[in-house]
Amino acid sequence: MSTHGNHNGHSNHTPPILLAIAGFDPSCGAGVAADLKTFAAHNCYGIAAITALTVQSTQGVRAVHATPTATLRAQLDALAEDANIAAAKIGMLANRANAATVAEFLDKNKFAHVILDPVSRPTAGDAELLDSAGLKFVRDELLKRATVVTPNIPEAEFLTGLQVRDVPSMKAAGQKLLEMGARAVVVTGGHLEKPTDVLCDPAGVETFGGDHVRSQHTHGSGCTFSSAIAAQLATGQNLRDAVILAKAYVTQAIEKAYQTGKGAGPLNQLFRFHQEPPARGVHEVPQHGMHPAAEPAAH
Amino acid sequence: MSTHGNHNGHSNHTPPILLAIAGFDPSCGAGVAADLKTFAAHNCYGIAAITALTVQSTQGVRAVHATPTATLRAQLDALAEDANIAAAKIGMLANRANAATVAEFLDKNKFAHVILDPVSRPTAGDAELLDSAGLKFVRDELLKRATVVTPNIPEAEFLTGLQVRDVPSMKAAGQKLLEMGARAVVVTGGHLEKPTDVLCDPAGVETFGGDHVRSQHTHGSGCTFSSAIAAQLATGQNLRDAVILAKAYVTQAIEKAYQTGKGAGPLNQLFRFHQEPPARGVHEVPQHGMHPAAEPAAH
Repeated sequence: MSTHGNHNGHSNHTPPILLAIAGFDPSCGAGVAADLKTFAAHNCYGIAAITALTVQSTQGVRAVHATPTATLRAQLDALAEDANIAAAKIGMLANRANAATVAEFLDKNKFAHVILDPVSRPTAGDAELLDSAGLKFVRDELLKRATVVTPNIPEAEFLTGLQVRDVPSMKAAGQKLLEMGARAVVVTGGHLEKPTDVLCDPAGVETFGGDHVRSQHTHGSGCTFSSAIAAQLATGQNLRDAVILAKAYVTQAIEKAYQTGKGAGPLNQLFRFHQEPPARGVHEVPQHGMHPAAEPAAH
Repeated sequence: MSTHGNHNGHSNHTPPILLAIAGFDPSCGAGVAADLKTFAAHNCYGIAAITALTVQSTQGVRAVHATPTATLRAQLDALAEDANIAAAKIGMLANRANAATVAEFLDKNKFAHVILDPVSRPTAGDAELLDSAGLKFVRDELLKRATVVTPNIPEAEFLTGLQVRDVPSMKAAGQKLLEMGARAVVVTGGHLEKPTDVLCDPAGVETFGGDHVRSQHTHGSGCTFSSAIAAQLATGQNLRDAVILAKAYVTQAIEKAYQTGKGAGPLNQLFRFHQEPPARGVHEVPQHGMHPAAEPAAH
């Protein structure tokens, strides 16, 4: 992290810069938009390489346009050559070619923190967010390049081949992912009656419970959770505290969510910024004729 | 604007929903990322249809991958069928086909506010952000479908064919754009020694001066300005006040900018949220063992 002088004589501090590698959701509940909002909520600056444009709304994913591999590679290279990246978070990859491009990128650029959310299918809609060759590549190649992997229960089942139904089987899946090469695993159980996350790393296994928030507005909770872990690690937390803080953050973002369309709404990742909405949505209203911006210019 | 109950029994208010139609800048200084941050800074919820993926960093634009027209149309339709859109902001369009798709979309969906930023070339890099057939389409077709058009000086020159060098010629260009079908025009003069914006609408012509902020971190200032106008209009300001407030906001976002790469950094659109950064980047640190999220689950 470095501080650079601004040419106006002020010196504004550069926060940690976090890279999201993921798909774009136009409804902005999931994917890169969720990642960028989560980074901002943790006072980090987000940059992003887009692996795919999805066609989706709060009612589900309708279609996927994968980014051409050369464009994805060019985006990644341009960013890594320019910015000092404190952590990378990987979400939707669309297909094997893009997953392989990301693996090459991680081999070229050694980041302190690489958080892999092995996104495969959306909760709503029947579109494929990663093709089957891509899923195998994630399991066999990308898993071991990540510092933390955050599968939900269906993703843990695919990656391990185990049946995962409860906390004991989540622990077994987490252990198996460590054996398969993951350095640390958080199996997320947001869909359990009592949502419980299981952290497995070489230090041991730990479970974290939480209260179930009754809300349909949970679109993007997986993206938000893994991005919050990335932000906490980049700002100096250890993994255990990062998981605890990320879980508490996601719970609050669901509690503060609001409807944005006809279906499952997004989390409110920026809830911390919006607790006291000012009148008419404006923070500082300059007095006309007194604020510099309002002074008539010489004609 | 409507309020819906959340299933958890709370009823969180839905803010105005604003649609950005623009390109994606991976360095997140300009384009859709700048638009979404600006909407959020004004307590609005942003959604976005991406017209192109650019390859760029703070050092300039290297390449453009235009979104296939069918994908752009599908994104737009999915959003408009799902959300209640208070204002649309249009930025980079990449090519004539995508510009025409946006014109059809505006004909199908009548929005109260349509802010058109007629983006043509980047400040840094020699990539084309809109092809020449697209520029003609914007001039001949899209201009008259907007409620406010926000060209900078080079864009005003292209659209009108006039030479624009100073405030009198900015006024002449603004008047000509009204004659060409625009309903209101703001010619932005951020590159003038004394940055001055000129507002032309049927009520008359007005100029707004401002202080020049000496900073290289102005990447995305045009996107940010037009998105701030969209947010102010959507939250009830009249156009004159929207322009004054947007200009003051952009000035502050430049003053609060920081370096993110080796070149021209982005504005800090979220500066209002970051005035008192907490220790270690975390707002609420739950007490381990006391916060619900940190309680060990039943094993």
